[in-house]
Amino acid sequence: MSDQAPIETDAVVIGAGPVGLFQVFQLGLLEIKAHVIDALPYAGGQCIELYPDKPIYDIPALPFSTGRELVASLLKQAAPFEPVFHLGEEVTSLATQGDGRLRLTTSRGKTFMTKVVVIAAGVGAFQPRRLKLEGIEAFEGRGLHYHAPDAERLAGQDVVIVGGDTMAVQAALDLTADGPQRPRSITLLHRRDVLQAPASALAEMQALCEDQQMRFQVGQITGFEERSDAGERRLTAVRIDDVDAQVHVLPVDQLLVFQGLSPKLGPVADWGLALERKQLQVNTEDFATSAPGIFAVGDINTYPGKKKLIVCGFHECVLAAFGAAALVFPDRKTPLQYTTTSPRLHQLLGVATPVRP
Amino acid sequence: MSDQAPIETDAVVIGAGPVGLFQVFQLGLLEIKAHVIDALPYAGGQCIELYPDKPIYDIPALPFSTGRELVASLLKQAAPFEPVFHLGEEVTSLATQGDGRLRLTTSRGKTFMTKVVVIAAGVGAFQPRRLKLEGIEAFEGRGLHYHAPDAERLAGQDVVIVGGDTMAVQAALDLTADGPQRPRSITLLHRRDVLQAPASALAEMQALCEDQQMRFQVGQITGFEERSDAGERRLTAVRIDDVDAQVHVLPVDQLLVFQGLSPKLGPVADWGLALERKQLQVNTEDFATSAPGIFAVGDINTYPGKKKLIVCGFHECVLAAFGAAALVFPDRKTPLQYTTTSPRLHQLLGVATPVRP
Repeated sequence: MSDQAPIETDAVVIGAGPVGLFQVFQLGLLEIKAHVIDALPYAGGQCIELYPDKPIYDIPALPFSTGRELVASLLKQAAPFEPVFHLGEEVTSLATQGDGRLRLTTSRGKTFMTKVVVIAAGVGAFQPRRLKLEGIEAFEGRGLHYHAPDAERLAGQDVVIVGGDTMAVQAALDLTADGPQRPRSITLLHRRDVLQAPASALAEMQALCEDQQMRFQVGQITGFEERSDAGERRLTAVRIDDVDAQVHVLPVDQLLVFQGLSPKLGPVADWGLALERKQLQVNTEDFATSAPGIFAVGDINTYPGKKKLIVCGFHECVLAAFGAAALVFPDRKTPLQYTTTSPRLHQLLGVATPVRP
Repeated sequence: MSDQAPIETDAVVIGAGPVGLFQVFQLGLLEIKAHVIDALPYAGGQCIELYPDKPIYDIPALPFSTGRELVASLLKQAAPFEPVFHLGEEVTSLATQGDGRLRLTTSRGKTFMTKVVVIAAGVGAFQPRRLKLEGIEAFEGRGLHYHAPDAERLAGQDVVIVGGDTMAVQAALDLTADGPQRPRSITLLHRRDVLQAPASALAEMQALCEDQQMRFQVGQITGFEERSDAGERRLTAVRIDDVDAQVHVLPVDQLLVFQGLSPKLGPVADWGLALERKQLQVNTEDFATSAPGIFAVGDINTYPGKKKLIVCGFHECVLAAFGAAALVFPDRKTPLQYTTTSPRLHQLLGVATPVRP
């Protein structure tokens, strides 16, 4: 995949959280088109991942908003600038080229060549919580999955799903559908007997368990078993401790783990940028990092007085956009224009300029 | 009036524009109560004074808002903290006291003793545009008015209203009402024959002119006449050039001037704070000015990278609030709390803390 032609662009924004989305808008006002990369499969970042329905009270002029509403508004606001989203993929490398441009690669094998990068990665890329079991990482992508694999890979197999929330329950229910791809057995495994899922899903699961179409098992994974198959290691079972501290061996061909997501700073730490306690140091004049062409906004940066609030990230986007404009348009002085009065901004936003009475 | 007891408070915010209103909110989250002073008779600042109905497109997560809507939302957001507004008055002096507190006085004779002041005065206090006519300022408050005087002062008098917008037209129409306070004559004077007012008001004016209940005169004031009345100077007439450069003498007892408002930095320039091109220099860590206890946010401040945008002012409010908290509560470390999760903030905001499912 890495031999795809590189995507050439003026700006790449890493992170599609609220601050990354407002960064797209601010870049757009200065006529800089942006590509946006996020590890999550949807825009919104923490707001969507951690508190989509909880209220936020401190966004200026929004006395009340849910994370979901906030993100919807920011997407709408950025829409006139037609950002290109690359979701569900992580930036794996970032390096400065001889011509001063920046080269990024992603976990899906895409390459970008860009004049500026704005890192709006919040607390880092949200990644599935891994099983803490020594040696099991060797099976990742074969017998062990943190994202649902293609259904055909599960056909006729013993499938164990680990997790206790809606995502885990729903994954189990989805597999019970009749058809050629149905697994041989489906077990939902959770460390306790309380599941966090809608009552309707739990009722459906109860019925399927009674009908022996799936099983629910309470227990904690403590080990695994494997065999060698034509020189290739294969997962064959997990050992679990149940609530009574009894050890069970659960046969498994495919282990699906849905234990939620946790943020990881990830490769950002390896790009040679000046850090202070895992935050990127920036200049408050333009929110530039220590590397030319790379800016950082939102929770991932630090400077004297820094507060990790969305409203502060919004301001940082404005100044970073002007910093970016100086690099993208080195021969142009970028004036500050107002969206209320500027005909050029109205044109970019696709709105009519009001006629003076 | 200046012998009123001083108002003791933790914080005074100078300026009730959008940034001043969000400053109240941010101070409130840190449990700092604020009084707000503004020269205009209503909250909203430039947004209300200059573009109440024009769209603003760059407030984060508000793809479209009028100035009026923005201000209404910010007032609603600040409401839980019960700010006390002092509108239609200007701060006339600001001085540091021996005990470190700040003493403010206003044009209405109020005195405040406060621990911190946040100057959110935008481009300055909005003041009525004065007549540019040498010597006429001597009549201000007697025969010359920039705010509508009490109706009884106009009873039986020759009244001339200067101006061509809705405010001027409406002031003339209001005076034509029958009653004991009716002026002897009412003339609307404007430099050209095009008035900026609703068609209905213009139609009403036309009818009143035809009925000789008022007059409309086109012309530019070039001089004035006066007499001495028991030792007191009284305005008796204005001289005007009409469109044909003919000089007229228009008898006048009371001259009401409504030529719009223009911002003046005003006394802020005299408080000994470090300035750079009429902007207050601030530290971007907490937006403190050069004087202890005095902070500056929004369009009135300057720092490297400064952009005069509302969204930047909002961020500045956050850091200024933390700077203020360090002075108001010197023995307390003020933690950053999130409105989404903090029970204490929910209590202050008067909202229920959601129960974890």
